[in-house]
Amino acid sequence: MQYNKFFEDAVARLHDERRYRVFADLERIAGRFPYAVWHSQTGPRDVVIWCSNDYLGMGQHPKVVGAMVETTTRIGTGAGGTRNIAGTHHPLVQLEAEIADLHGKEAALLFTSGYVSNQTGLSTLGKLIPNCLILSDALNHNSMIEGIRQSGCERVVWRHNDTAHLEELLIAAGPDRPKLIAFESLYSMDGDIAPLSKICDLAEKYNAMTYCDEVHAVGMYGPRGAGVAERDGVMHRIDIMEATLAKAFGCLGGYIAGKAEVIDAVRSYAPGFIFTTALPPPICAAATAAIKHLKSSSWERERHQDRAARVKAVLNNAGIPVMPTDTHIVPVFVGDAEKCKKASDLLLEQHGIYIQPINYPTVARGLERLRITPSPYHDDKLIDALAEALVQVWGQLGLPLGAKAIAAE
Amino acid sequence: MQYNKFFEDAVARLHDERRYRVFADLERIAGRFPYAVWHSQTGPRDVVIWCSNDYLGMGQHPKVVGAMVETTTRIGTGAGGTRNIAGTHHPLVQLEAEIADLHGKEAALLFTSGYVSNQTGLSTLGKLIPNCLILSDALNHNSMIEGIRQSGCERVVWRHNDTAHLEELLIAAGPDRPKLIAFESLYSMDGDIAPLSKICDLAEKYNAMTYCDEVHAVGMYGPRGAGVAERDGVMHRIDIMEATLAKAFGCLGGYIAGKAEVIDAVRSYAPGFIFTTALPPPICAAATAAIKHLKSSSWERERHQDRAARVKAVLNNAGIPVMPTDTHIVPVFVGDAEKCKKASDLLLEQHGIYIQPINYPTVARGLERLRITPSPYHDDKLIDALAEALVQVWGQLGLPLGAKAIAAE
Ligand SMILES: Cc1ncc(COP(=O)(O)O)c(C=O)c1O
Ligand SMILES: Cc1ncc(COP(=O)(O)O)c(C=O)c1O
Repeated sequence: MQYNKFFEDAVARLHDERRYRVFADLERIAGRFPYAVWHSQTGPRDVVIWCSNDYLGMGQHPKVVGAMVETTTRIGTGAGGTRNIAGTHHPLVQLEAEIADLHGKEAALLFTSGYVSNQTGLSTLGKLIPNCLILSDALNHNSMIEGIRQSGCERVVWRHNDTAHLEELLIAAGPDRPKLIAFESLYSMDGDIAPLSKICDLAEKYNAMTYCDEVHAVGMYGPRGAGVAERDGVMHRIDIMEATLAKAFGCLGGYIAGKAEVIDAVRSYAPGFIFTTALPPPICAAATAAIKHLKSSSWERERHQDRAARVKAVLNNAGIPVMPTDTHIVPVFVGDAEKCKKASDLLLEQHGIYIQPINYPTVARGLERLRITPSPYHDDKLIDALAEALVQVWGQLGLPLGAKAIAAE
Repeated sequence: MQYNKFFEDAVARLHDERRYRVFADLERIAGRFPYAVWHSQTGPRDVVIWCSNDYLGMGQHPKVVGAMVETTTRIGTGAGGTRNIAGTHHPLVQLEAEIADLHGKEAALLFTSGYVSNQTGLSTLGKLIPNCLILSDALNHNSMIEGIRQSGCERVVWRHNDTAHLEELLIAAGPDRPKLIAFESLYSMDGDIAPLSKICDLAEKYNAMTYCDEVHAVGMYGPRGAGVAERDGVMHRIDIMEATLAKAFGCLGGYIAGKAEVIDAVRSYAPGFIFTTALPPPICAAATAAIKHLKSSSWERERHQDRAARVKAVLNNAGIPVMPTDTHIVPVFVGDAEKCKKASDLLLEQHGIYIQPINYPTVARGLERLRITPSPYHDDKLIDALAEALVQVWGQLGLPLGAKAIAAE
C-alpha cells in the first residue's frame, strides 16, 4: 500500500483549489503592540499586525504579564495532572470563581480551549438531556457543530439570526420535547450580532434551554466586559455561557458557566474535560488578572470601539469595500480566493502590514475577505498607512473600489 | 420542562455509585517538589504529592521556569490567534522543530493537548485514508477511542498487548485493505509496556500504518528521552508518534510527529487544529527548554527509575500489595471503590500524603487502586514515611496485606 499517496493527494487537492495555507512565523514584542517581527524566508522583518484576536492587547498588559511571571516563579510551569489526579490547583480554582462572577452564574468550568469547551461541553449536555433536540444557528462555529454532532442528538439548523425561523422550528418540536438552542452572540467573520433578547423570549415561551458562545465578545462588550448578553441585559436569561480566555483576555483556555448542577454534571461526565491535563497555573493566574482588570477598566473597550469606527471611516473614504458591521470587526470584501491571498502577500511584502486572507472553509466561497481587527493601540498614523497600502494593492490587483464592490450574500 | 432535574439526576447517579469526584485544591511550590499546600475546607495545610504526572519535576526546573518567564516578558502571555490567523509564532515553530528532531521524524504538529492530538489527529488520519480499518488496543486511552470513533472508520479491537490476536485481525482484514494500528507504548494505569518491536514486525508484514501514543514515556525512556520506541530501537519503524508536553516535560500541549506529507495533510484538514487558538509563546518556550534539557541530561531518568525501584521494594517489604510493573508507575491494589477513596482521604488528612484514588471509569470496577508516581525528588525519608502511612491506613480499613491481596485481572 502506498500510504503516502493518500496524504500527498489530499494536500495536492488544496493546492489545486488555491487554498493551501502557509502560516506566517511571527514574533510579537511585549509593550510594542501591534508591532511584531516576521520571520520571512529571507530573514526577520518588522511588521504591523492588523488581524490579531488578542483584540485588546491584553496578552501584553503589564498586569497580565506580571501575573504569569509571578506565578511561574512561585508555582512552576504546568499543572502536572488531570483535574482529578493532582491537577486542580489554586489559581485554577480562583479563575473559575472569577468567571462565574463575571457572568453572574453559580459556577464555571475550565477547559483547555474554547474549542474544547464547545466540543465536549455541547456533546455532554446533549447526552445528559434525554431525547434532546438541538436548534443550531446556521453560522455556528466548527467547535459547536462538532460538539453537537458528537452529542448524538437530533439537530435542526435555523437560518442565521432568523428568529422567525427559529420560532417555527420550536413550535414544530412541540412543548414536551427537551430543546437546546445553540448560538453565538457575535459572529466573528461578518461581525454581526445575534438578537439575544428575542432568542431568550422564544426560549422562555417554548421552554428551551439556551447555550451562547461569547468567544468574540467577552472583555469587549458590557459594563464589566462579560459580553453582548451583559450589554443587552439578558445575561441572567441565558442558561449556559461559553467563551474563551485566548482572545480579548490574551491567554489560553475556554469555559462554560451556568447553574451549579449543570456545571457539576458536565464536570463529572465530559471526557474531553476528565481525561486531559489541567491548564497551567501561570495561564490561569494571567487570565484572572485580565478578567479582573477589564471588569473595572473601560478604557480598553472605549478606545477599541473608537479605533474600529475610525478604521471603517478612513477605509470607506478611500473607497475600500468595507462590509458594514456594528462591531469591532472590519471585514474588507475581496470575493476571490487567489486575489485575497495575493492582496495579503502584497501587504506583507511591500507594506509590512500583516492581514491574513480569509478563504474557504472559514467563509463561503465567493465571500473571501481580509478581516481587519483594530486594537486600542492602532493609532491614526497606522490607520492612514493601512488605507494607503490597501488602495495601492487594490490598484495592483485590479480590484473594484466603492461599496458596490461588495457581493450580496 | 424541569431541565435541572436531568442534571441533578446525573450527579445523583454518581453519588449512588460512590464515584462522585471531589478535586483537591493544591498549590505547588516551585523549588520544593514534591511539596505543596493543600487548600482544605479548614484552611491551608502542607502535603507531599505522590501522584503527580509531572513525573520528573520538570515543571519546576530552573531552565523551564526561566524560559517561561523570559518569553512572557519578551513576547507576552498568549498567541493571539489561530495558527492560520496571526497565531503562529517563533517559539512554536522552534518547538515543532525540536519535537521532530527528538523523534527522528521529518515534521511535527502541535495541538492544545495530548487529548486533542489523539482526538483530532486520529480522526483526521482515519478520514484521509480511504476505507481505513483501525486496529485499536483494548486498553487505549479515551482520547484515542474518541478520535477513532470520530474518524468514522471501521474499528476492531485487539486484546491488550496480544500480538497473536493482532495478527489474526490483520490477516482477516486482507492485504488490500488500508490499515492503521493504534496503541500506547506505556499504559499508565497498569504501568505495562507494549511489545513495540513485534507490533512493527506485524505492521511491516501485513502492510499497516502504525500510530503510537508515548504520552507516559517521553522524557523518561530512551537515551535522549524520546520514549520507549527510542529505547527499543524501533522509533524509525513507527509511522506516527504522539505524545504530550504536559507530563514529563512539565508544561501543556500535545503533538504528532511523522513524515512531512502526513503532518502537512493533518495540518490542513484537522478541525480541532485549525479552528482553535495556538499554544502561547511562553508555554512553547518552556516545553522546548524541557525537551532540550532531557535530550542531554540522563540524571533525571536514572534517579527516577532508582526511586521507583526503591518505592516498590520498601512497600513490598511492608506487605503493601504493589501490582508488579517494569516501569516508573507503582499501582497499589485496593479493589473497592469506597475503600480506595477512604484510603486516599486518610492518607491526606492523617498523614499529609496526597494520592488520588483511581476508580471506575479510569480503571475497571474491582481493580480500584492507589497509583503512586515516585519522582527524582522523593527521598528515602519520604519513601519510609509513605510505607508507614500505608500500613496504618491498611490496618484502619481492614485491607489485606501481602502480594496475594492482588486480584487477577
Ligand atoms: C465562535 C468561536 N468559538 C470558539 C472558538 C474556539 O476558541 P479557542 O480559540 O479558545 O479554542 C473560536 C475560534 O477560535 C470561535 O470563533
Ligand atoms: C495515554 C494518554 N494519552 C493522552 C493523554 C492526554 O494527554 P494530555 O493530558 O496532554 O491531554 C493522556 C492523559 O492525560 C493519556 O494517559
